[in-house]
Amino acid sequence: MGVTLAIDAMGGDHGSKVTVPAAVQYLQQHPEDTIILVGLEVEIQAELQVLNVSQSSRLMVHHATEVVGMDESPQLALRNKKQSSMRLAINLVKEAQAGACVSAGNTGALMATARYVLKTLPGIDRPAIASFLPTVKGEVCMLDLGANVDCNAEHLLQFALMGSTLVSAVDHIDNPSVGLLNIGSEDIKGNEVVKQAAKLLQESDLNFYGNVEGNDIFKGITHVVVCDGFVGNVALKTTEGLAQMLGSFLREEFNRNVFTKAMAAIAMPVLKAFKHRVDHRRYNGASFLGLRGIVVKSHGSADIYAFRCAIERAAEEVRGGMLQHISEHVEKWHLARQPKEVA
Amino acid sequence: MGVTLAIDAMGGDHGSKVTVPAAVQYLQQHPEDTIILVGLEVEIQAELQVLNVSQSSRLMVHHATEVVGMDESPQLALRNKKQSSMRLAINLVKEAQAGACVSAGNTGALMATARYVLKTLPGIDRPAIASFLPTVKGEVCMLDLGANVDCNAEHLLQFALMGSTLVSAVDHIDNPSVGLLNIGSEDIKGNEVVKQAAKLLQESDLNFYGNVEGNDIFKGITHVVVCDGFVGNVALKTTEGLAQMLGSFLREEFNRNVFTKAMAAIAMPVLKAFKHRVDHRRYNGASFLGLRGIVVKSHGSADIYAFRCAIERAAEEVRGGMLQHISEHVEKWHLARQPKEVA
Repeated sequence: MGVTLAIDAMGGDHGSKVTVPAAVQYLQQHPEDTIILVGLEVEIQAELQVLNVSQSSRLMVHHATEVVGMDESPQLALRNKKQSSMRLAINLVKEAQAGACVSAGNTGALMATARYVLKTLPGIDRPAIASFLPTVKGEVCMLDLGANVDCNAEHLLQFALMGSTLVSAVDHIDNPSVGLLNIGSEDIKGNEVVKQAAKLLQESDLNFYGNVEGNDIFKGITHVVVCDGFVGNVALKTTEGLAQMLGSFLREEFNRNVFTKAMAAIAMPVLKAFKHRVDHRRYNGASFLGLRGIVVKSHGSADIYAFRCAIERAAEEVRGGMLQHISEHVEKWHLARQPKEVA
Repeated sequence: MGVTLAIDAMGGDHGSKVTVPAAVQYLQQHPEDTIILVGLEVEIQAELQVLNVSQSSRLMVHHATEVVGMDESPQLALRNKKQSSMRLAINLVKEAQAGACVSAGNTGALMATARYVLKTLPGIDRPAIASFLPTVKGEVCMLDLGANVDCNAEHLLQFALMGSTLVSAVDHIDNPSVGLLNIGSEDIKGNEVVKQAAKLLQESDLNFYGNVEGNDIFKGITHVVVCDGFVGNVALKTTEGLAQMLGSFLREEFNRNVFTKAMAAIAMPVLKAFKHRVDHRRYNGASFLGLRGIVVKSHGSADIYAFRCAIERAAEEVRGGMLQHISEHVEKWHLARQPKEVA
């Protein structure tokens, strides 16, 4: 059975110029699925016309009169823009007209709106942002990547549960291993929150591997890596910065003179294969976990290919029954913890 | 005038097999300097014999009967190993027989011992670990990289002062710019500690740029990037892990078959230039700042070239008068703050 996805067509640095073609390309590859493009109808129609595509029962347009700015305050957006493309796309998830919502808009506004409209799952204190990253062995799910800047141990435990469930649902891995991001592998390392979280994780029925360090993330030692949002956001952006710098150094070296340019031309097939392999666009699409609905956030600067990857991510979560998985897990887990808390 | 450096010859994964040849190479390039190799005399002499080098007034051996293990508890090492190569090398700095000490040993033990023997500078609550990283524009000094896992705003301010002074002394830059590592550029972003630190930095006479994000580090936006030790350690190790993965992917792609191998052979000059440019060994050598003496920590797994770079780093700090700079700055700065605190 196909899935239905609501796309905030106006979000991101490029708005409908990226979101509409990405949606059309996605549907070409997934003719069983349905997309609802939410945004200024005139603009969306203009984009569809450029692509020579018309509305259909598989590609619908849902008009929204407002757009949330990329730098707009989340609270103001939540209060004043009730007819924004972002808000209406999330509303469609709330009303079960769409299985998931995808937006490249303002992260803070998207999280605030999603939290307000969809509410958090019972037993989850705070939603988290999770993303998949490439490793030498496959991929790793890392969270939180910036939704929560001051976490306690219980929050980290909940992130572990949610990340674990996401990997189960999407990658079909039973009981995925969970690593706790720390500055050393020994138990005595780290700050107080991390030490307490390690204890909670050990006592939990999750497949807790133990502490992992920054350099372990890309080794693929665990399926899930858990950290607070400040640390996760810095780590993620730092790797983005490093990858950009290395890429520009490699280009510079190959562009140095006519000889190096000739070498680049000869080595092009390998350089292209390498580029594809490390293409960060393939990993675009961060999942907001812990909500009563699936919301995927695309990078604001995403191009058509990258935004299509974020749509794929959302569709995978719907197909994998991520939401049901996560609700069941959280419920089961809370029931199991109840007697302990009483005792 | 030459500088004198005390080398913990036994530290690191490879001990004297790396430290002794690195010291000898260093002296060949800096015949005006002096090195005191501290460690098991028999072992050091054996290494010198292999290299066909003998002791001299420029290359001395200082016997130490004990060695601190790489996994040894810092507290136990401090209490029980008073004759370790690490301890005696630091003692030489304390006694002003050496201008700096370099060790590839156990980080925790080195910091605990350095702090105990040398003491912190007046006005500095906690020493920090600083390192230089490459950027697209040159290099950036980042701290703290793991000495302090629970920092308050005042600590971050002190790190900023120390990092700024290190850059002034070593890179001869007046009033270096300081960035505060955060998860967004806006003032409202980040956790409470970071928000308070931003206020303190704004009120200080440091050249405060404002918040920087993870991806800004390698852009060379500021000369110094300040963060707490947990975040800094994770960010540093994450980039190490990513660089390793990208390197192994590039190697794999070029080794895929006979054609790609031929391409690698042709492109070798460019690949070598690229490799040299991003060679992390050139940045080996983290400075312990805030102590009454210069201590440089080499990566435990450093090879001869990398360890030599750490020795260079220590020598640069001595030549740049880093210690005097930092003491004067801290003193001046505390005097300037005094009336405010009274008022």
